Amino acid sequence: MQPDQHLLRIPGPTPIPPSVERAMAQPMIGHRGQEMKELLKIVKEKLKPIFGTKEDVLIYTASGTAALETAVVNTVQPEEEVLVIVTGAFGERFTKICDEYHIETHKYLVPWGEAADPKQLASLLQQHPNIKAVFATFCETSTAVLNPIKQLAEVVHNESEALFIVDGVSCIGGTETKMDEWGLDVVVTGSQKAMMLPAGLAFIAASKRAWDVIEKNPHARFYLDMRRYRLKLQEDSTPFTPAVSLLQGLKQALTLVEEEGLENIFYRHEMMKNMTREAFKALSIPLLTSDKNASPTVTAVKPGDFAPEDLRKIVKSDFGLTLAGGQQHLKGQIFRIGHMGYCSPADVLQVISIIEIGLQHIGKHVELGTGVQAAQATYLKMKG
Amino acid sequence: MQPDQHLLRIPGPTPIPPSVERAMAQPMIGHRGQEMKELLKIVKEKLKPIFGTKEDVLIYTASGTAALETAVVNTVQPEEEVLVIVTGAFGERFTKICDEYHIETHKYLVPWGEAADPKQLASLLQQHPNIKAVFATFCETSTAVLNPIKQLAEVVHNESEALFIVDGVSCIGGTETKMDEWGLDVVVTGSQKAMMLPAGLAFIAASKRAWDVIEKNPHARFYLDMRRYRLKLQEDSTPFTPAVSLLQGLKQALTLVEEEGLENIFYRHEMMKNMTREAFKALSIPLLTSDKNASPTVTAVKPGDFAPEDLRKIVKSDFGLTLAGGQQHLKGQIFRIGHMGYCSPADVLQVISIIEIGLQHIGKHVELGTGVQAAQATYLKMKG
Repeated sequence: MQPDQHLLRIPGPTPIPPSVERAMAQPMIGHRGQEMKELLKIVKEKLKPIFGTKEDVLIYTASGTAALETAVVNTVQPEEEVLVIVTGAFGERFTKICDEYHIETHKYLVPWGEAADPKQLASLLQQHPNIKAVFATFCETSTAVLNPIKQLAEVVHNESEALFIVDGVSCIGGTETKMDEWGLDVVVTGSQKAMMLPAGLAFIAASKRAWDVIEKNPHARFYLDMRRYRLKLQEDSTPFTPAVSLLQGLKQALTLVEEEGLENIFYRHEMMKNMTREAFKALSIPLLTSDKNASPTVTAVKPGDFAPEDLRKIVKSDFGLTLAGGQQHLKGQIFRIGHMGYCSPADVLQVISIIEIGLQHIGKHVELGTGVQAAQATYLKMKG
Repeated sequence: MQPDQHLLRIPGPTPIPPSVERAMAQPMIGHRGQEMKELLKIVKEKLKPIFGTKEDVLIYTASGTAALETAVVNTVQPEEEVLVIVTGAFGERFTKICDEYHIETHKYLVPWGEAADPKQLASLLQQHPNIKAVFATFCETSTAVLNPIKQLAEVVHNESEALFIVDGVSCIGGTETKMDEWGLDVVVTGSQKAMMLPAGLAFIAASKRAWDVIEKNPHARFYLDMRRYRLKLQEDSTPFTPAVSLLQGLKQALTLVEEEGLENIFYRHEMMKNMTREAFKALSIPLLTSDKNASPTVTAVKPGDFAPEDLRKIVKSDFGLTLAGGQQHLKGQIFRIGHMGYCSPADVLQVISIIEIGLQHIGKHVELGTGVQAAQATYLKMKG
């Protein structure tokens, strides 16, 4: 294979647009100077529509897990009761963080590959009237499921006084998120998914009622204390030294988002989802999730009659195409294709055409071009 | 369309590998210091196998046309007779340079889209016994023809004492070139084609018999004087200030070439040529050149029943895919696809899948996936 080939199609980290790379390669600036102040003034406003909120979107120098922990330690105290909706590996991560802090954690365990059911959630909330917070994963990266966050939020607010806290790491920026309108109390995401940046930044926003809880919460926290970040952000500053080059990249990434337009971005992700799914249907290779539950940012394929690891190996060695495998009990059972952020319908066509070749190589007979044709037809249909 | 999309598939300039971009973004170094000396010591050796020569490969800071002019002004004097083999726009450029210098220029005019015929060349050389130099284009970029340079060289040496001078701009680095073995007297190329660099550098090598002529040639030249470049290169230096960042990129590009291996690179280009051609055959869209004359670095398509400019416009606006149009009388008649340098079979699959969609958009009915399927099958056949 030609060296220096990188077709990174995992559900994050994702490829970086060239103009964002150039922005991150600018000369370093001081983190307490006027330039940084001006940068923060701009980016803090541009982040809001992506979250669908008028509230502050706090910027942490940390990876996604720190953002999940931030959501926990700022809103809940030890011994309080919470409910975690577990639809896969990232729902589980919430439970592990809660356990670590001796929070009384109820779990709503959903079979991997399925989405959470609002009715089941309602019944659980009725059974546990003292729940202070419900944690959910918007896109469950491990299964490529998009949970019905709007409907789940409705249930939480109808059935309880609990805060509704959402991990949006692998979809925010790639799918519509209306934090204020839907009543999401805390929303967190990371930089390395649909936000078109390297890992290293996390973004966190909270509703007014969440802030009431956060302000009063006596639970110890320092680096993750949202109060510190909000106070400093209001002065266009950060409480601790931020990842300056990532912030320089963030400014450019948000410029690209504005240039394309959020509605167009969401539609592009819908197209990429449908193109990918229609391709595998045409190839008669089963998908892990139903159409209804499928995420616009990642697709999980569960073949059955060939080993996903063989396919992943051959497309990597022959084309430099990186696909993701399965996590935990789905390891070796599925492969996952990321199609988010700096990824286009043209990239989906390329991925499908490579996978068809890879399948031939590992002895799984498919009619070449079949998946591509379905993806092309889907593109044309949706493009109109 | 998503902003910051760049699928540059013209026959040069070509995309730059990320590691070459990073190399070019290194801190500037002095052009007379030890670092530059060490850089030149390395790159001058690594260029030789690409030309298939043991002679020095001179490095000019200039574009390809300066390299063509260099070949003329160093080897020929005004009033001397030369023969230019004209197979397209770049053959013509040689004649314009010769005319400018009042060189007596005979032309072997080949219809655009065809290759030069060694027998015809022999007959022309017999008619004009005083010819001092024969100029030929290896890959004629304007028509996507690869001329049979080895056979033409044989004829030149059998029929005359003339030097055989070759413009290899749009193929050297992408196709086998055995300068010494084939008896090519001067070979020139540019940086922005199969060499995986931006435009700005030109590379020129000459045989021992060419150097005899060059050394004695009294014709005035300063910046383009090959003697100056050879003397300085022997000291690991340059006669004039070179494009330092391009040289930093060149070092990395040549490292990539070594890593992949020249034989593998040439085979990759053969694959990309065949994949592209088989795709259009499967789509029943005519190619400009025959299989025998086709270049491994660029393919010209001559549709007849749709306007190439319409297709070029739609694939650019919808996918950021840049294809080349026709030059001179082929303007509006053909489109050209570059597949050289930092370009892989995966890129060819992507280009074909986009073109199929573009054709639907402009109302030319093709069965989606047909071209991709043919390209995939060709890849599998050649990959073995």
